[in-house]
Amino acid sequence: MADKIGIWLIGARGGVATTAIVGLLALQKKLTANHGLVSELPQFSDVGLSDWSQFVVGGCDIRDTTLEDEATKLLTESKLLSAELLDACKEDFTAIDQQITPGTIFNVGKTISDLADPEMTKKDSTPKAIIESIKSDLSNFAENNQLSKVIVMNVSSTEPTVDGSALPSNWSEFEPILENEDCILAASSIYGIAALQLGMPFLNFTPSLGTAPNAICELAEAHGTCHMGHDGKTGETLLKSSLAPMFQHRNLNVMSWVGHNIFGNLDGKVLDDPENKQTKVVSKDRLLGQILGYDPQTLVSIEYIKSLGDWKTAWDHIHFQGFLSTPMTMQFTWQGSDSILAAPLVLDLVRFTEMASRRGEVGLLTDLCSFFKSPHGIEENNFVRQFQLLEQWAAR
Amino acid sequence: MADKIGIWLIGARGGVATTAIVGLLALQKKLTANHGLVSELPQFSDVGLSDWSQFVVGGCDIRDTTLEDEATKLLTESKLLSAELLDACKEDFTAIDQQITPGTIFNVGKTISDLADPEMTKKDSTPKAIIESIKSDLSNFAENNQLSKVIVMNVSSTEPTVDGSALPSNWSEFEPILENEDCILAASSIYGIAALQLGMPFLNFTPSLGTAPNAICELAEAHGTCHMGHDGKTGETLLKSSLAPMFQHRNLNVMSWVGHNIFGNLDGKVLDDPENKQTKVVSKDRLLGQILGYDPQTLVSIEYIKSLGDWKTAWDHIHFQGFLSTPMTMQFTWQGSDSILAAPLVLDLVRFTEMASRRGEVGLLTDLCSFFKSPHGIEENNFVRQFQLLEQWAAR
Amino acid sequence: MADKIGIWLIGARGGVATTAIVGLLALQKKLTANHGLVSELPQFSDVGLSDWSQFVVGGCDIRDTTLEDEATKLLTESKLLSAELLDACKEDFTAIDQQITPGTIFNVGKTISDLADPEMTKKDSTPKAIIESIKSDLSNFAENNQLSKVIVMNVSSTEPTVDGSALPSNWSEFEPILENEDCILAASSIYGIAALQLGMPFLNFTPSLGTAPNAICELAEAHGTCHMGHDGKTGETLLKSSLAPMFQHRNLNVMSWVGHNIFGNLDGKVLDDPENKQTKVVSKDRLLGQILGYDPQTLVSIEYIKSLGDWKTAWDHIHFQGFLSTPMTMQFTWQGSDSILAAPLVLDLVRFTEMASRRGEVGLLTDLCSFFKSPHGIEENNFVRQFQLLEQWAAR
Amino acid sequence: MADKIGIWLIGARGGVATTAIVGLLALQKKLTANHGLVSELPQFSDVGLSDWSQFVVGGCDIRDTTLEDEATKLLTESKLLSAELLDACKEDFTAIDQQITPGTIFNVGKTISDLADPEMTKKDSTPKAIIESIKSDLSNFAENNQLSKVIVMNVSSTEPTVDGSALPSNWSEFEPILENEDCILAASSIYGIAALQLGMPFLNFTPSLGTAPNAICELAEAHGTCHMGHDGKTGETLLKSSLAPMFQHRNLNVMSWVGHNIFGNLDGKVLDDPENKQTKVVSKDRLLGQILGYDPQTLVSIEYIKSLGDWKTAWDHIHFQGFLSTPMTMQFTWQGSDSILAAPLVLDLVRFTEMASRRGEVGLLTDLCSFFKSPHGIEENNFVRQFQLLEQWAAR
Repeated sequence: MADKIGIWLIGARGGVATTAIVGLLALQKKLTANHGLVSELPQFSDVGLSDWSQFVVGGCDIRDTTLEDEATKLLTESKLLSAELLDACKEDFTAIDQQITPGTIFNVGKTISDLADPEMTKKDSTPKAIIESIKSDLSNFAENNQLSKVIVMNVSSTEPTVDGSALPSNWSEFEPILENEDCILAASSIYGIAALQLGMPFLNFTPSLGTAPNAICELAEAHGTCHMGHDGKTGETLLKSSLAPMFQHRNLNVMSWVGHNIFGNLDGKVLDDPENKQTKVVSKDRLLGQILGYDPQTLVSIEYIKSLGDWKTAWDHIHFQGFLSTPMTMQFTWQGSDSILAAPLVLDLVRFTEMASRRGEVGLLTDLCSFFKSPHGIEENNFVRQFQLLEQWAAR
Repeated sequence: MADKIGIWLIGARGGVATTAIVGLLALQKKLTANHGLVSELPQFSDVGLSDWSQFVVGGCDIRDTTLEDEATKLLTESKLLSAELLDACKEDFTAIDQQITPGTIFNVGKTISDLADPEMTKKDSTPKAIIESIKSDLSNFAENNQLSKVIVMNVSSTEPTVDGSALPSNWSEFEPILENEDCILAASSIYGIAALQLGMPFLNFTPSLGTAPNAICELAEAHGTCHMGHDGKTGETLLKSSLAPMFQHRNLNVMSWVGHNIFGNLDGKVLDDPENKQTKVVSKDRLLGQILGYDPQTLVSIEYIKSLGDWKTAWDHIHFQGFLSTPMTMQFTWQGSDSILAAPLVLDLVRFTEMASRRGEVGLLTDLCSFFKSPHGIEENNFVRQFQLLEQWAAR
Repeated sequence: MADKIGIWLIGARGGVATTAIVGLLALQKKLTANHGLVSELPQFSDVGLSDWSQFVVGGCDIRDTTLEDEATKLLTESKLLSAELLDACKEDFTAIDQQITPGTIFNVGKTISDLADPEMTKKDSTPKAIIESIKSDLSNFAENNQLSKVIVMNVSSTEPTVDGSALPSNWSEFEPILENEDCILAASSIYGIAALQLGMPFLNFTPSLGTAPNAICELAEAHGTCHMGHDGKTGETLLKSSLAPMFQHRNLNVMSWVGHNIFGNLDGKVLDDPENKQTKVVSKDRLLGQILGYDPQTLVSIEYIKSLGDWKTAWDHIHFQGFLSTPMTMQFTWQGSDSILAAPLVLDLVRFTEMASRRGEVGLLTDLCSFFKSPHGIEENNFVRQFQLLEQWAAR
Repeated sequence: MADKIGIWLIGARGGVATTAIVGLLALQKKLTANHGLVSELPQFSDVGLSDWSQFVVGGCDIRDTTLEDEATKLLTESKLLSAELLDACKEDFTAIDQQITPGTIFNVGKTISDLADPEMTKKDSTPKAIIESIKSDLSNFAENNQLSKVIVMNVSSTEPTVDGSALPSNWSEFEPILENEDCILAASSIYGIAALQLGMPFLNFTPSLGTAPNAICELAEAHGTCHMGHDGKTGETLLKSSLAPMFQHRNLNVMSWVGHNIFGNLDGKVLDDPENKQTKVVSKDRLLGQILGYDPQTLVSIEYIKSLGDWKTAWDHIHFQGFLSTPMTMQFTWQGSDSILAAPLVLDLVRFTEMASRRGEVGLLTDLCSFFKSPHGIEENNFVRQFQLLEQWAAR
């Protein structure tokens, strides 16, 4: 029998995780087509990816809710999923709910903390103690489910910005910091450290700091495991990384690129807090200069509009100069469900990362850069070129 | 002193040609930035392209007008160019006007023929005789201006569709056809044959048939020259070739792609004739299936809206399915000046083709595919991958 | 006990009728808010409109299907309605299905005829005989359900254009025509005549000819009943009638107004037939000139895009001149469900018309013009002014 | 000979004023069509409006520039106006420049003050002293040009918000405040007081406080003159006041209305200061609730994007519920030149106000409400109904 592989989701009952879980169940039950799944493209059919049936889901969350409630909300508030599909998943929801442990709200900011239920949050006061507690949860998950491997993935809400540049760049100086209650690191990094110390691959689907600091990267090498981040590239930024190369290759001078994003899910509510929003905006904005080779005036806004629910709508206005300095305009609107766009990438990343881990790859998985808004360890942001890296890597 | 190189434009007083001429003069006089010019990108600065100062313009047209009048129309009707720039070009316009000979309206369809002036059209009745007359014009242009080389480029309006599949596939069977008055070939192919027989490179910037037929390709080989086509990729189709790969790489199932194009220049008037429009629509539509690997429902409309002048505006509506078959929507609008987008590509193509010719390349220049909506001899339509071919070729 | 009032729908199992029926049931069962219902606005609360509980639905159709199947299709194909609501309506669907009789396909064109089931179409060969058969159906409906009144409403698909101007303008000359098998009138007029001859109010929610001819109007007077049409104003045209007055009042010169409509329901399929489309396009286009006082270049396209289902999407591009003849642009996109927009207007029209009938109004109900794209008997197309007429009329 | 009438513009060399001046000159010289001018509509041709030839322009400004420079900037930076037209106006520019006096920067905020030239600002330290100085400028303008009347209009940049509610509501208590150097009133009110005290009509085209306070209104009555404000309704808000009635009349429940505005002229730069922006946003946002009768979630952003120059581009996303609570979406983009849209309204307002003054009207001219985003003294915001008031008033 094939090995069983664990997926441990941080924010396991959020919109993205819930949709990923529904999707995985639908794939296992053969109730859905494979639209939106990169790993199901023909070029990846023979490279040795695990089968959907091998995956087992667990994770942690800080809110007092159930997967069924969250999935039902996606149906009623955002017209996503379907009544039949949720019916078919009911029992599995209950089983998975039992695999979900309390999470940490260390330095996640007031807006996220306010969402937390006291019963669902870890009480430890230093990062070090929290890390030990998480490691214990992860080990239990692996043991109880007889898993050959566990992939840890952060799909929780965006934290306020942590300035990683001030941190020591090697682990020996870094480690003592974790014993301070006023350590500046936030939850995403704490989870990352726990995973890497257990030799478990870690993926950061959010713009939070996670395992980006050099000292934590060193930890991955030391424990012979891999990791990657950050910030899943799902909508407006995916478009930027597909369109900006066109302007660059045609020597069209982008004078300004304005992007307004509106949506109304829980992530949107969290991003309505300027502290958390700042982390996201930087991540959405940075790639343009890298692709174009110069910095046009840019503006990225993210606004919480309740009625939209999970439907993230973006309007981008691109003002550029063509030949003889003639100004011209391109505009686009993108109406996509945030969770539906993100969920398959979560599953794809797990599958590709599990394969990398089996192949013995250690450190940052830069060949997975096409999945991220701000990929660690690599400057490539042209989406087609990023995808070529994925194809070449998988074919190796 | 550096060699002088001729550019011979078919449709030399049309919007695209006029803008290309104004642009070339502005470059030679150093009155403009290099926005919109691919050949001015850093990666092409050391590959051996000719200098703008080396180029001399001639060509043919069928309308009774002057370059100055046409340029002035672009300013007053479409707010393009500028009064100062046109002032600076006045004398050159007169000089170039003298290099422009009458053209042929053989099988160009009623709408184009109606635009022609009797004094500006060739009177010969068989393609063969017309070819000889064009060859004489081309030779005179080369001789009178002491040109080391002439690049012939078709920037005239779109002809009604010619079914090339019915034609003999080798030159020996093909040649006799040219002696018939009722030959199905149209002007674009006649010009192409003339150029290739003189060993002059030929470029087809329009969706007309040109040198696409196998027998004419054979001619290029026989005379040791190069050619390429067809249909310059300037706006909506450029976007399709940049966006469709995104949907494909993310396994997002495009259910329908609707594109409506409106504009009001002379080309628009010609395309308002269903006979001519058909040729264009096929060219704009074909690449989607090639990139996606399946054929979504597509719709391409092109409509003549007088008030827009040269400002081609496109609205595209892309309806696609993501994960769990969820329908989502992307829309874009593109507001670009047709002539301003096309003109720099005309100059780029001349420059790259002239270099190919110096390097001794013979036959179809498939590495220039990024410039064309329907590139001959190559199936690649992903714009970024097409551009990689250009970079690799130039660096060779 | 309050009187019972019949609604007799032509095309009773089409998308609009099905949605109107679901909506009426939801209102009667108090399962929905009153969004989209004009007659539920505060200014109409005391004018004496009937209660939703008084209405009983019947009608005719030509297709072999059931209300439940059609409603389920709206849910699965277009994500409209909800599983719970359909569950609550199941038994009523069956009861209403039994009130639905076969319809006529006289001169409805090939595309509509191809949708018909032989068992669901009347076999009579002259309009006169068909009229008698319909009158018998209408009388049975009234009698069997003990109705005090029946309102007849056409919500079937658009017929090919009938040139009404060629018909005699008085009833005595008109009537004999109905005995010819090759009479040019189509189904919509035949139904209208049947209704008016029984003294039943007739409403034409489609662009088909219906009771527009003078001779048929005369019939309404003769039988002391009222009627109105035509073509329900639900989406893009509603916007035109709201926006065009703005351009007119500000003396902004509309140079061109382009409107592209795409959708994928059954009506869309019927309109994909150029014969039927022509009827619709004229109706959507005519009001601009009436509001503006001059005729800008206009373009209206309607295209069948299957994936969109009932979601009619319109893109309008308005090119106008402001001060000093400066060209400027407004664009809008409208994403609305065709059936959801139309259904409440169907119910509103029934309610307002029933009140008019009780008040003894005879002839064209021009005060209901705000509901129609091309209101009969009145030139007013400014939506706000039309609505003022409704308010003033209701308050009388 | 007809009377000469003065137009005294506050901010006389700003974009709006410059365009209004060019436009007036073009009208006087018969060099332009009357597009964009409300007062040129047929229904106002016989009501007794003054002729364009009667108007003489003066005003004040705080910047060190010339009309010719400002007009040329509109041409080169924003492709507005035309080289020929500016040539034809050159001499008039110089003459008008001589009629422009220094202005006051009292409480206009840091961003506006930074634009001021010391030589062009009044040195007085109390509002009372400044008012006297302005009155002297106004009297000189009237006298030197032998004007029968002067209309004073504020077209300067938006000031930071002044809380008018804290001010005394009658003039006798209000007047002493003007002797304090730390009076909270800003320039717009100071100009307004000066004008009204001279019996000159005052119009406030900006969202600044102006003559809104009750005590200042009392002053208009006392001096038998008229005034009106505030904030010219030129673009996005004009659309809101045309579209919101449609949603209201159809009982479509607007859940959210998001409006993003981007532009790059001097006004945009001033509005980039949060203090000044606040004044504008409130003005753009308030009418929705008044028209709809409830308050949907709204968002109005105004951002300075340099490359756009005077081309204000707005994207509005309207999310509404129709029948059976079905969510639907309308979006629009508006690409208009801010100055070109505003300038004709400035001229119209002058013309209508001059007529009102001749008719002896005193106090707020509420019948001019269609011209303003936030009309004083009247709650009507439905644009068509506002326009009916104008028509009825003019016809009186």
